Formats: sequence, C-alpha cells, structure tokens
Amino acid sequence: MELAAFLAVMEQIAPRSLALEYDNVGLLVEPDHTDIKKVLIALDCTTTTAQEAIDYGADLLLTHHPQFFYGVKSIGFSSPLTGAAALLLRHGIGHFAAHTNLDAAKGGVNDTLAELFGLLNVEPVPPENIGRVGVLPVPMKLSELVDRCNHILGCRSAYAGDPDRLVCRMAVLGGAGGGDLEEIQAAGAEVYLTGEAKHNQILEAGERDLALILCGHFETERVVLKSLLDRLQILAPDVQYKITLREKAPLLFS
Amino acid sequence: MELAAFLAVMEQIAPRSLALEYDNVGLLVEPDHTDIKKVLIALDCTTTTAQEAIDYGADLLLTHHPQFFYGVKSIGFSSPLTGAAALLLRHGIGHFAAHTNLDAAKGGVNDTLAELFGLLNVEPVPPENIGRVGVLPVPMKLSELVDRCNHILGCRSAYAGDPDRLVCRMAVLGGAGGGDLEEIQAAGAEVYLTGEAKHNQILEAGERDLALILCGHFETERVVLKSLLDRLQILAPDVQYKITLREKAPLLFS
Amino acid sequence: MELAAFLAVMEQIAPRSLALEYDNVGLLVEPDHTDIKKVLIALDCTTTTAQEAIDYGADLLLTHHPQFFYGVKSIGFSSPLTGAAALLLRHGIGHFAAHTNLDAAKGGVNDTLAELFGLLNVEPVPPENIGRVGVLPVPMKLSELVDRCNHILGCRSAYAGDPDRLVCRMAVLGGAGGGDLEEIQAAGAEVYLTGEAKHNQILEAGERDLALILCGHFETERVVLKSLLDRLQILAPDVQYKITLREKAPLLFS
Amino acid sequence: MELAAFLAVMEQIAPRSLALEYDNVGLLVEPDHTDIKKVLIALDCTTTTAQEAIDYGADLLLTHHPQFFYGVKSIGFSSPLTGAAALLLRHGIGHFAAHTNLDAAKGGVNDTLAELFGLLNVEPVPPENIGRVGVLPVPMKLSELVDRCNHILGCRSAYAGDPDRLVCRMAVLGGAGGGDLEEIQAAGAEVYLTGEAKHNQILEAGERDLALILCGHFETERVVLKSLLDRLQILAPDVQYKITLREKAPLLFS
Amino acid sequence: MELAAFLAVMEQIAPRSLALEYDNVGLLVEPDHTDIKKVLIALDCTTTTAQEAIDYGADLLLTHHPQFFYGVKSIGFSSPLTGAAALLLRHGIGHFAAHTNLDAAKGGVNDTLAELFGLLNVEPVPPENIGRVGVLPVPMKLSELVDRCNHILGCRSAYAGDPDRLVCRMAVLGGAGGGDLEEIQAAGAEVYLTGEAKHNQILEAGERDLALILCGHFETERVVLKSLLDRLQILAPDVQYKITLREKAPLLFS
Amino acid sequence: MELAAFLAVMEQIAPRSLALEYDNVGLLVEPDHTDIKKVLIALDCTTTTAQEAIDYGADLLLTHHPQFFYGVKSIGFSSPLTGAAALLLRHGIGHFAAHTNLDAAKGGVNDTLAELFGLLNVEPVPPENIGRVGVLPVPMKLSELVDRCNHILGCRSAYAGDPDRLVCRMAVLGGAGGGDLEEIQAAGAEVYLTGEAKHNQILEAGERDLALILCGHFETERVVLKSLLDRLQILAPDVQYKITLREKAPLLFS
Repeated sequence: MELAAFLAVMEQIAPRSLALEYDNVGLLVEPDHTDIKKVLIALDCTTTTAQEAIDYGADLLLTHHPQFFYGVKSIGFSSPLTGAAALLLRHGIGHFAAHTNLDAAKGGVNDTLAELFGLLNVEPVPPENIGRVGVLPVPMKLSELVDRCNHILGCRSAYAGDPDRLVCRMAVLGGAGGGDLEEIQAAGAEVYLTGEAKHNQILEAGERDLALILCGHFETERVVLKSLLDRLQILAPDVQYKITLREKAPLLFS
Repeated sequence: MELAAFLAVMEQIAPRSLALEYDNVGLLVEPDHTDIKKVLIALDCTTTTAQEAIDYGADLLLTHHPQFFYGVKSIGFSSPLTGAAALLLRHGIGHFAAHTNLDAAKGGVNDTLAELFGLLNVEPVPPENIGRVGVLPVPMKLSELVDRCNHILGCRSAYAGDPDRLVCRMAVLGGAGGGDLEEIQAAGAEVYLTGEAKHNQILEAGERDLALILCGHFETERVVLKSLLDRLQILAPDVQYKITLREKAPLLFS
Repeated sequence: MELAAFLAVMEQIAPRSLALEYDNVGLLVEPDHTDIKKVLIALDCTTTTAQEAIDYGADLLLTHHPQFFYGVKSIGFSSPLTGAAALLLRHGIGHFAAHTNLDAAKGGVNDTLAELFGLLNVEPVPPENIGRVGVLPVPMKLSELVDRCNHILGCRSAYAGDPDRLVCRMAVLGGAGGGDLEEIQAAGAEVYLTGEAKHNQILEAGERDLALILCGHFETERVVLKSLLDRLQILAPDVQYKITLREKAPLLFS
Repeated sequence: MELAAFLAVMEQIAPRSLALEYDNVGLLVEPDHTDIKKVLIALDCTTTTAQEAIDYGADLLLTHHPQFFYGVKSIGFSSPLTGAAALLLRHGIGHFAAHTNLDAAKGGVNDTLAELFGLLNVEPVPPENIGRVGVLPVPMKLSELVDRCNHILGCRSAYAGDPDRLVCRMAVLGGAGGGDLEEIQAAGAEVYLTGEAKHNQILEAGERDLALILCGHFETERVVLKSLLDRLQILAPDVQYKITLREKAPLLFS
Repeated sequence: MELAAFLAVMEQIAPRSLALEYDNVGLLVEPDHTDIKKVLIALDCTTTTAQEAIDYGADLLLTHHPQFFYGVKSIGFSSPLTGAAALLLRHGIGHFAAHTNLDAAKGGVNDTLAELFGLLNVEPVPPENIGRVGVLPVPMKLSELVDRCNHILGCRSAYAGDPDRLVCRMAVLGGAGGGDLEEIQAAGAEVYLTGEAKHNQILEAGERDLALILCGHFETERVVLKSLLDRLQILAPDVQYKITLREKAPLLFS
Repeated sequence: MELAAFLAVMEQIAPRSLALEYDNVGLLVEPDHTDIKKVLIALDCTTTTAQEAIDYGADLLLTHHPQFFYGVKSIGFSSPLTGAAALLLRHGIGHFAAHTNLDAAKGGVNDTLAELFGLLNVEPVPPENIGRVGVLPVPMKLSELVDRCNHILGCRSAYAGDPDRLVCRMAVLGGAGGGDLEEIQAAGAEVYLTGEAKHNQILEAGERDLALILCGHFETERVVLKSLLDRLQILAPDVQYKITLREKAPLLFS
C-alpha cells in the first residue's frame, strides 16, 4: 500500500485535528519505502520496539507515544531520547505516532476503555473531549471495581477512596490523567480510572471525595492496540500487521 | 516559645536559601498566637491534618509540602486547593512548610533516606544538591534491594530493571524524582530510588540502563518526620510536638 | 436565600462576562452558611469593613474591589494584602466582588455617574464599554462643572484645563481612568471626569486639550453602592442589606 | 561649552548607572549645535516647555521626565506623546533627561526633599536606594507635618492616618511612591511623604498603619530644579541656565 | 489636496489590513501642512531621500520601507536609525510608508513583478498572500530566465540551481523572500525570484531542488514605484509627484 | 583515534564556551565507531557533503554550520532540514559542528580572514569578540580593496561606499555580519568586510558612512577549512582528513 494512502487511513482513524496543541503526531521518521507492507504496532518507540520492527522487517513502527516530544538538536544511537529513532533511520523504517488524537478519537484509547468496562451513556469529558464518562452496568463497591480493573486490564491497581463506597458513574482516561480532576468531577464522575497521577493530584482527589483508581500508564493504554489493529485490518487490509511481542509493562511489582 | 524564635530554629534546620526558585516555603498561614506551644508535624497540609491539628490544639501545622503551590485568587472551605488553609485560619493555627529546602538540607529527607539504607561515601547530586548518591554496604541483586526498600520504607515498590542485576552505587531522592535521570546517572548511580516517576521517565531510565525503584512519594518522604521531630526536640525543647496519626499513605494497593 | 440564588442575582446585575480579562471577580471567600440572610455592601474588603461585617452578623461582604488581585501564596491576619480575608474566613463570612463587570454593567458605576450628572444621549466608550460619554443638560464653564462635581460627589476635586472653558460633552469613568485618554477623546469628550490619574496621564490630557476632573477613586465609585442596594432589594428582597457605615474616604484633605 | 563636556557634567550629577532598568535617560533628542550656551531646566518635556526653550533660545531642554518612555514608531507635532520632541527637533534644540538616576543621586530629588524637611540620620531606602528615610528634628503630630509639607512644598496635601498621631521617622520619595510601601515600612518609617499613590496603595498604607502624605507628583519633584541649577552653575559655569517660568502645577484645586 | 483625502487614497491602494502584524505602516511623521501639493516617492526613507524631499519642496515622502521599524526612545540628526525622520520633521515634511500592505495589494510590488515577467494564471501564495505564483509565457532554461531578470530589473542576479534546467512555474516575492521556501514550493513553483536570501535559506532551496534567483532587495521592489505613481496620478491627480532621482541601488558590483 | 580524544582536540581548537548562547555546537550526530580514522571537513552539513562523507568512508563530517539549528520534532531523508543528518545516521557517520566558537577562536574564521588581508594590530571586536579589527598594511582606495577581496577570497564582491574613498582601518567578520554595525563602527573601522547583510543593514552602513564589502557568506567562511585542517593535522595526526571537493559556492553569478 502506498505510504500516502496509509497515512490517509490513519487520518481517518485518528484525525490530526483532535491532537492537543502541544502534541507531536504524524510521520516523525520517514521510511525508505513508500510501499508499506508490514507495520509493527506498539505503545512506545523505544530501542526495544525499534529492534523488533527491524527483526520483523517492518516498514513502519506505529506507536501511541511520539519519540520526539520536545524538539531535539542532536541525535544518536546511545542517546536515551533519540536512540530508537536513530535505529529506525538506520534501517529505513518509518515512525508514525497517533497520540492525543488517538486518545480522543472515536474508537480510540478511551472509547476502548469505556467499552471494556461496559459503560452506558458514554460521553466525552469537556472541554478537551479526551476522557469519557458513563454509568457502570451495575453499581458496585470501589474495591470490587478495583478487582475488575485488575482483571480487565491485567494490572495491579493502586487506588484512593473508601473501599466500601458504592460507585456508579465512572470516568476513564488512559495515561496520565491527574491534571483533569476538576473537569472529571464536573462531569459527574464518582470514580476516576486513569493510568498515573502525581502525589498532589491524589491528595486533591481525596479533598474532592473523588475515588481514584490508578491502573498504570502502560496498562490503560495498551488496550488500544487491539482496537487499532482491528480497524487497520478493515481499512488497510493489504498491509501485514503485528502487535509488539517484546514491549512489556515497564514496571515490575514487588 | 516565641514564633520568631521557632522560625529561627526552622531556618537553621532547613535554610530558606536551599529551596528551589519556584518553591513556596516558610510561614504560609499566620497563627493567632505568637506563643508556640504545640506543633503537629505531617507531610501534607490537608483537611485531615488540619482537623487533627485543631483537635490536638496545635499552634502550628508543620508540613513538608506547602498548601499554596501556585498563587490563589480565592479561598474556601470546600475548595480542594485551599480548604485546609481555610480550616487552619478559622482556628487560628499557623501553617509552616519546609519543602525543597528540607529535601536538600543536612539531615533532611534525602540524608535520612541515605542513612536508612546505610549508604557510604554519601554526596549530594549536582547541580541542585537535593538528591544523594552513595555506595551500598554490600552489593546486592536489584530484587533484594527492592525487598529491602519495602521493608525499610514500609511500602510496596514497583521497579524497572533486571531483578538479578547486581547493584552497588545507589542514588536516593524522596518524592518525584523522574526528571533528574541525567544528573543521577552522571553521578554514577546504577540504581535510583525515588518516590514516583512518569511513564516516559521510566522508559528513559530503561534506555539509560539505570535501574529504578519507585517506593511512593509519600513513603519516601514520611521518613523525614521522625528526623525533623528529633532535631526540633533538641533545638526547641519547650514546644510539644506530635507526628500526625491520621495522615495515611494516600494510595491503597489491590 | 440560598447562596446559589444570590449569586445568580449578582450575575444578573453584573455579568461576569463583562469583567476585563485580568480581573478577579465573583465569590472570593466562601461563607460558612449557604443560607444568606445579611449582606454588608462596601467599596473595599479591608480589615475595617471585614470587622463591620462581623459586628453586623453578615453572611457576605459584597464589595466593588476584590481582596485578591494577584494570586497569593500565603495568608495572614497581619498581612496588609490578605488580613481582611483572614478575618472573614475566621468568622465564616463570604466575600463577593463585582469589579469591572459592575463598572461596565447597565446601572453600574458609570451609568450611575452619568445619571447623577444628568447626561443625555449616554453611550458606552469603546472598545471596553466601561466608561460612559454624553451631553451635559446645559453647557457650563469647567469651573462650574468642578463645583457641581464637588457638590454631587461630596469630594474636593482637582482638575486640569482652563476654568473658563465652556464644556458640553463629558465622559465619566469611576476609579482610575487615566489610561483611557485616547479612547475618551475619540468618543468626542471635551471633559473627562474620573477618580485618579497619574502625572504623565494628566500631562497627556493637557497635550490633548482634554479637560480633566479628578474627584477621587473612592468618591467616584461609592455612588454605585446605593444603586446596587436598590437593585438587590428588588431582585433579592429576602436578604437584609446594609451599606457600610465605617468605610470612609481614605484620604483626608489639608 | 562642548556638548560632550556638558554630558560629562550631567553624568557626574546623575550617573546613568543609578537609573532603574526600565528607564530612558540621557540625550533623547540631539541638538543642532554641539556648542551649548543656554539650557532651560524643567520637570517635563511638554509642548509648553519646548516652546519656552524655543523662545529662550535654548540649546537644550533639560528635564526630569523623559519625553519617550516607551519606544515610539511615529512622531508628530499634534501627537500628545511626541509633539514636544517634534517641536524641539524643528528648532534644533536637544532634550536631555535625568530621571530615576536623579531621584537616586546624591543631592538629587530625594536628598533635596530630606534636606528641606531637616531630616537627620538620612539613609537611602533599600534595595533601589531611590527614597530616603530619616528622623524629623522634632516629633510632631501628623496634622502638623502635613501643614509643614504644604508650607515647604507649596502644595495642598492629601493624607491618610490619624491627624493626632505623633510621628518621628519619615521617608520621602518624590513622584509616584505607592509601590514601595513594604520597603518603606521595613526601613522603619512611621510616615511616608510621596507625590501620588493609587487607591489600593492608599488602603495598603492603612492596613500597614503607615501614615501617608501625598503632596503631588509635580510638587515633590520640582524642588530638585533649584538644586540642579546650583550644581550646574558650579560644574558648568560657562553655560547660561534658566528654570522654566511657564511650567505650572498640572492640577488646579477646587 | 487635503491630507486626510490623500491618506484615504493610499488606503485604497494599499489597505492597512493587508499589512503583516509586526509591520509599521501609515503616516509615521506628521507633515506641517494638511494641504498636500507635492509628494516624493522612493523605496526608503534615508537622509538622501529626505534631503531630496526638502529640495523638491515636498509635503510628503512616500516610501515602501518605514523609517521606524522597532520603537525608538531617542531621535537625532546623526543617528543612523532616525536621522532621516529628524530631517523631515525639521522641514515640516511628512513620511508615509506602505510596506507589506503594498507587497500584498492588488497592483502592488508582487503583482507588478508578475506582470513584468508576463506570468499567466497568477495567484497569491498562501497563507499570507504576499508573493505571487504563475506560469511563464514559454518554458525556458534557468540561465535564460536569469538573463531576462537582469534585463527586466536592471540587476545582476545571483542564482542557485542547474543553469540548463527548464523552468515553467515561477514564484515572485520582492525584497527578502528566503523565509517562505516551504510555502513557495507548496504552491508548485519550480523557480523562485526574490530579492535576497540568507546562506542557510539558499542551501535549503538546494535541498528542496527549488531554483532560486536573487535579483536584489532594491531591484525587485523599485519596480513598484512606477505602478504606484500611475495609480496616484489617477486617484489623486491634484497632487504633483516625483519618483526619487537620488536613490540608487545601495550595492555596487565589482 | 578515540572519539573522546578527537572531541578534546576540537575543544582545544574551538572551545565550546566561546559559542554564542543560541548556538548549537558539538557532536550533533553520533557516529557508529568510536575509533575515528577519516574526517571530511566542510562548511555545511548538506546531502551533498553527507554523500561525499559516505563515499569517502568518513567516520565524521566536521562542519562550520550545524545541521540542527532549531530543535526538530521529526526527521527524514526527503526533509530539507534533516535529510543530511538522516543520510549520515544511515551510514553510521557522525556530525560535529564548530560554529560561533570557531568564528571567535584564536586561529578561527576571523583570525584567518585578518591574516589573509595582512591586518596589523588585530583586535577582537567587543562585546562578543567574534569579529576582528585591524589596520591594512597600506591605505588603499575602497575599489582597490574590493579587488583584493575578490582576488584573495575568489569571490565577486558587492560593496557600498565611495569607490575612491581611502580606507585604512578594516573590520572582518565571516558569514552574516550586518547586525553588528554599531559595534564595528565603535571599534573604529572605516570599512567592514563580511559575507552578507540585509537591505536595511546596508542602508544603515550608508547612514553611518561605514564602507561595506559583501564577499559572500560561503566565500568568507570557507577560508577557515584550510586553517582547521592544518591545526588538526598537528594536534590529531593519526586521523586522515579531507576537505570537501563537492561543496561549491551555493550562488552562481550571472
């Protein structure tokens, strides 16, 4: 498939106009070939996934997080911030990122989370429309919901709030969601599932009496990879896809 | 003890000149009484610790984190960002914060961490001299060190790195240390104990081949409360102190 | 009356959308009670008016100028910038400010000034529509107009311009109006009544041949208190109001 | 006298290094002649003083306030901000300003004020060392001091504070001094004489219990003209000087 | 002709709304007379053209480039940045600049360039619509086009690109055009005629395989003077015009 | 030679501390090998010199201008701003830039220029000490000096000033020097040789009566390549060097 046609498919899946202003999305490393045959899908562009793309013979490494977040003024194989891009360039493999636009898109990270939890009456959380809020199929205790999170996402959650509190209206936002507590609460959520939050944000949730479940940045976002794969196989079926096998949750639990 | 004299003692323990430029430290809420008799010590100024200070009859709530981090233009009991200060003001109790100055100070957060782990040849990590780096008494596997962390800090750590890697030179920085990886590595650390780090910082540690142990923002900083108490009891013995009983680790583990 | 209902009435009187961007308006200190029974009305939130609100048993201190103009990072009874707010918080009294929105509002500060001078064909002064410009009922000498100002506003004006100049078209802007000379002149004013102006602004008025009457920041704004009271008594009649008795003009004349 | 030599004399009287960073001082309009024979001295460069300089046959108009405070992108005779400079340029007369450097200089605006009031143990007020603080020869009631101000400066002061309060330690700062209240109070002043202050600054003085006397921007600064003349006649005696006769206090009192 | 009427004609020729945001256009020096009888037209307001305006008895010096580009805080005959304005002010001659608005205007700098080269299907280059792009009447070698440039503009061009390359679609932008290469290429140009470009911009054109012809800032803009004259003679025929005779190309070639 | 040792030699030749603050110098693309055997030297890192480095089998491309001047957020072979870096990365060749530090260094760009013209009493031009000023061996007409420039630098200069003016004191600054006219004149130069200048800078030189010779950005800087080679062959003799053969002056003259 022509690169331009593949980019058009990605624009359909995660329109660039949905990305937050500060974000860096799109084709960040240009591939050698304009004929795209194999694409490796992962959450992050790291030396691990870059090497896997090489071994797989991929033409593109398609990830959620962009390799370049701030502008860089030098590039090198041994640099922790540009090493993966250097590897890809060396082997003629492109890098495409769909980040906050994939968070916000229909069928993206947060729609996938909402669906996994069977949320009803799902709506985007204003003003940025990245998170989603909806109603759980049945009210349950916070501790039960935490168990469900662990089961559904394959994670070991940490949480804040009374384990016996009965919760019903839930917001979800994959990744780092601690900066949106005011908007989440204004959307009526009693409990907020996100990936990570900072200490002061966790305390703020406590002061707001908003229950918080932290399932891991990685664990709340990797769910989108399968959704993405499914849509790509329909919209760009001529390309061969593979979801990364080597990318692991970056944190081990003791 | 006169408030002014107490402030002078705190200046001795955590000199204001050590605070980072963006920080907000010192007497942030003015107490009714200039005669300080009882001081409650905690990590955070929250409605929980404020209420405990009220119940204890404290003249001051002395914490690590400041209530006001950014300037506020309104204040209210039900506001998640100013509610604790409003409570204190209502009851004439002052609020004093020693934050990055206490991190950096001799005998402060990070010296305490270094001491708990028995680090040898301890040195501050340039350029901000907040973190500490030193040598473990005996080299050990990363997984063993993680177990020690859990034991010493009473936490359940997450970590990144090969569990069987033998580590010897360790850096410690209580709180949120993920932004300092370059400096920590330049100081020669093989393993870095801190409280919390963001997803991209954890990946960066991986690219740097720097082992990372995340023990919790709260758990890495609360160790300073006892050190602080000890020094205050020596330097300002006329005052009665209490370490908070109600402040709990903000996150529960599933 | 419910606090929320009272806030809605204030929004009707001085819509928040009329406030200038840099301004700080609305409920700046949260009261204890959500049932509003007594409101003290004043120009400024000072320790004097705060104490009066306490003695009056007010639930709210409603003022023109906000206590917090810039964000604050500490608060204290003895602080000149936050002492009044501390007093109010201590006694559970709220603080509500209607500032540039009340200047600009229909029936607000500047409409009241225009009405007191019987101006005809009154129009807002673009682009911010805070000031008002209109025609005096009869043309008069500048010196006569200054005498009228003193009589109407109970002030001792200072002025710039030829006392014998006959003036007809007049602009009014309560408070500090010296920064708007270009706009005021573009609106066709021959004479400009405002509260205070800086030295270079007074010279600029001279260069523009625009007569200037400075009646005092306080004296040009306190006229709104009665208008405000009248409208509140109609729109929220269940509440008991009092205009401050203790707030005096801050400057004495020799 | 050569222009360069005259500029060197002015540098001696009011060194450029004493000016505040935002200020604009020095030779702001270049004269036709480099031989300086006649200099008109005034507080401001206005169309009035510029015309007087023309009629006097001056080579330079020497003022306290600069004509250009912010950068200008156009210039014109009818412009209120550049008209005086246009007039001077038309007639080949230069314009030299000694502003905050003359405020701060030894023998400048504030030393002159301190001397007029017979202050003892006079010291600059840190950190900018523009204002002066000292002790009145005899303690007196605030109302008496106000009378003395009116007598010495030929003004009609407004003031804030208890007229019967006995004051002893006084700060002086010609011009607009309301932004320096914290520094003035830290220097121990009980009463602060300045030219003008804004409404919120007057209230702040009240909250600080700092008596405030406002004598007029013009009236507190014109006293320097005679001091300046005296020094110039000694240091540059070949030049003929005249203090403006046409510049009047810009405000009339009703 | 009244000055106001003349300004209205200029607004018709080069509407102020077309100027780029950073630009400084319009009446920058105010003339003595509001009756405009003679206007000198030039590219720049320099001491040379200012003196010519004086000798010609002009009421206005009308130029493409403004004298004041950044705000000035002083003015003088011997100053390289304000000397021409000082001369004009001395002689009561006004200065009017039509800069980027004249570049962009219908019939302005770039339309004139397009017309001189007989470009077909001429369109503005987005997003700023200052440059123009169109098709040459006949395709020609780059070296032939360079010869035509030299002939048409009376210049000695420098160029980058293969002299034998056949070019057809050409963009033109008088003055300094090197910052617009991406937009110019996106508009489909094969060759780009502009006045000047910086070293890195010339290299960038090479990397883009965009042929570049640099004809001189002066030489690419002076062509507008005749167009401007023609339009003024139609729209404001009562005024006498002269195109500068003394303004020469600022660079000589060796 | 070890890469680290080679970098130390470059630090000796062009110390990083001499670079201007905004500059980007040092190792900008990391090479595959830490054993440096062959280095290609050029002015710019372009696809042309990158390809030459590949063909030469270089380990490093050493240039004056850095490939990355502003931070980049994507990288690609077909990108005009990052294509050369992509090529180098593909082939494991490093890129090292010595820019304003090489301009300023002893024996760098401007010392080389000064030496080529036999300037006497050569001094750096404050405050940045990048340019050099000195006295020509014999005074000569500007036109003669221009001829010498063409001869010495192999360029076709453009110039501004009276061809018959006798000049003696000359400043030199390779590259784009038009922004430094005030400093150059303050250093006493009568004539200023630089690479390129913008239209308004050329006019400014005219107003300053400072003769200006523009010899081309490329032509004034390439002279340093031989000096650099000579020093490297002495300080790092184990490495094989080659000065680019394919890099040509980017502009052709008609």
